[in-house]
Amino acid sequence: VHVLIVYAHPEPKSFNGAMRDLAVSVLGELGHTVEVSDLYAMNFRAGAGRGDFLEAADGDYFNYLKEEMHAAEGGGFSEDIRGEQEKLMAADFLILQFPLWWFSTPAILKGWVERVMAVGFAYDRQRRFDNGVFRGRRAMLSLSAGGPAAAYSAGGISGNLEVVLWPLQNGVLNFVGYQVLPPFIAFGLARGDAEARQAILSDYEARLRGLDDVQPLAFHHLDDFDDTFRLKPDVMAKTAGQGWGR
Amino acid sequence: VHVLIVYAHPEPKSFNGAMRDLAVSVLGELGHTVEVSDLYAMNFRAGAGRGDFLEAADGDYFNYLKEEMHAAEGGGFSEDIRGEQEKLMAADFLILQFPLWWFSTPAILKGWVERVMAVGFAYDRQRRFDNGVFRGRRAMLSLSAGGPAAAYSAGGISGNLEVVLWPLQNGVLNFVGYQVLPPFIAFGLARGDAEARQAILSDYEARLRGLDDVQPLAFHHLDDFDDTFRLKPDVMAKTAGQGWGR
Repeated sequence: VHVLIVYAHPEPKSFNGAMRDLAVSVLGELGHTVEVSDLYAMNFRAGAGRGDFLEAADGDYFNYLKEEMHAAEGGGFSEDIRGEQEKLMAADFLILQFPLWWFSTPAILKGWVERVMAVGFAYDRQRRFDNGVFRGRRAMLSLSAGGPAAAYSAGGISGNLEVVLWPLQNGVLNFVGYQVLPPFIAFGLARGDAEARQAILSDYEARLRGLDDVQPLAFHHLDDFDDTFRLKPDVMAKTAGQGWGR
Repeated sequence: VHVLIVYAHPEPKSFNGAMRDLAVSVLGELGHTVEVSDLYAMNFRAGAGRGDFLEAADGDYFNYLKEEMHAAEGGGFSEDIRGEQEKLMAADFLILQFPLWWFSTPAILKGWVERVMAVGFAYDRQRRFDNGVFRGRRAMLSLSAGGPAAAYSAGGISGNLEVVLWPLQNGVLNFVGYQVLPPFIAFGLARGDAEARQAILSDYEARLRGLDDVQPLAFHHLDDFDDTFRLKPDVMAKTAGQGWGR
């Protein structure tokens, strides 16, 4: 298995850095090959713009999707984007490693998603969700969260973490076709001591060693939805009360 | 009322640009003063980093929160951040105007939140949620979404839009103390014709003219939560089934 870790933390000695290093080492020991995109070290540009394309499909009106499609059809992406797309296409397993900042990824990682997962490359109207480009591959969020787990539970002040991560897990990873493994979350590091940190790293190592036994998150299939992109009534009736957000 | 519109779209002639222009014109006509931060035009830097601070609290280990706190206590923020903080502090009403990209704000706007809403300036342990720095002020998301409204409804393939926007509306705006007005959303522009666009702009104008009559979104109060940041059992019992995500 070839693994890509997209890592977004500005401090190499951070706990996220330790999680990245652990994953590289454990996955390598298990016989996998691992590549890391260290976005801060690469000074990866976060803002999507004209510079993302070798030529313009429309020099007068900048429609990002239209320019992406043109680039995917032969116009060409900028070198930094093309490099990341090649890494992504080569990877059977994708890990996004980041601190939860403002209930989401750091902007630099959001920019990676926007610029790299281009329409025509990572998805199009026909290829998405269970028909997605990355179907048959797996992906996982690995993150640290400053608050305690209780704050992110049902009834917690920050809201259920499944809700907080929905835009990423459904809207990005499931959308482009990945099987999404449950996230690994390091809670409460703001107050954590060395022992607590070591315990979390041990848990993460166990998760990494047991990846094949982890059940992916459940998402509805495309044909559960009708032509207006809503769940069919019989599916809705069967699953009522089982999920949140639908 | 002094209004700040933080606008994140790379194309000035875009529909988001038209929404921004309409807001500037209508709010001005109503006697308010309006300032716009046009993040793409400003080439606003999205990635949080060392350059955000005039001096380092810890030159060996980069902890963003620690550096923010040091800057807020007198060390000083970079000029671009300080400028945005002054605009934010001067505004009674904040509008974030953006296209929904990957179920969230464009990275450039996520970076604005990360860098501008610094701990020690926009919040701290004592000042957040209903004790927040911006209590008594109002904020609103104004966005375009490519898909049809049905896709973002309960049962929709993209999930309830309230869930999609929870990280922004609770995790950012409610967190720093704003009263959050219901979002204004322009759906389905990917397929929209000129007439559809004009209808949406008319709706937006009506919303802007009727802002004083709009009921803010409901969030739990801080004292609904116990010391572990979970809803108190009696509150939970009273509100069970009324919300999602908790």
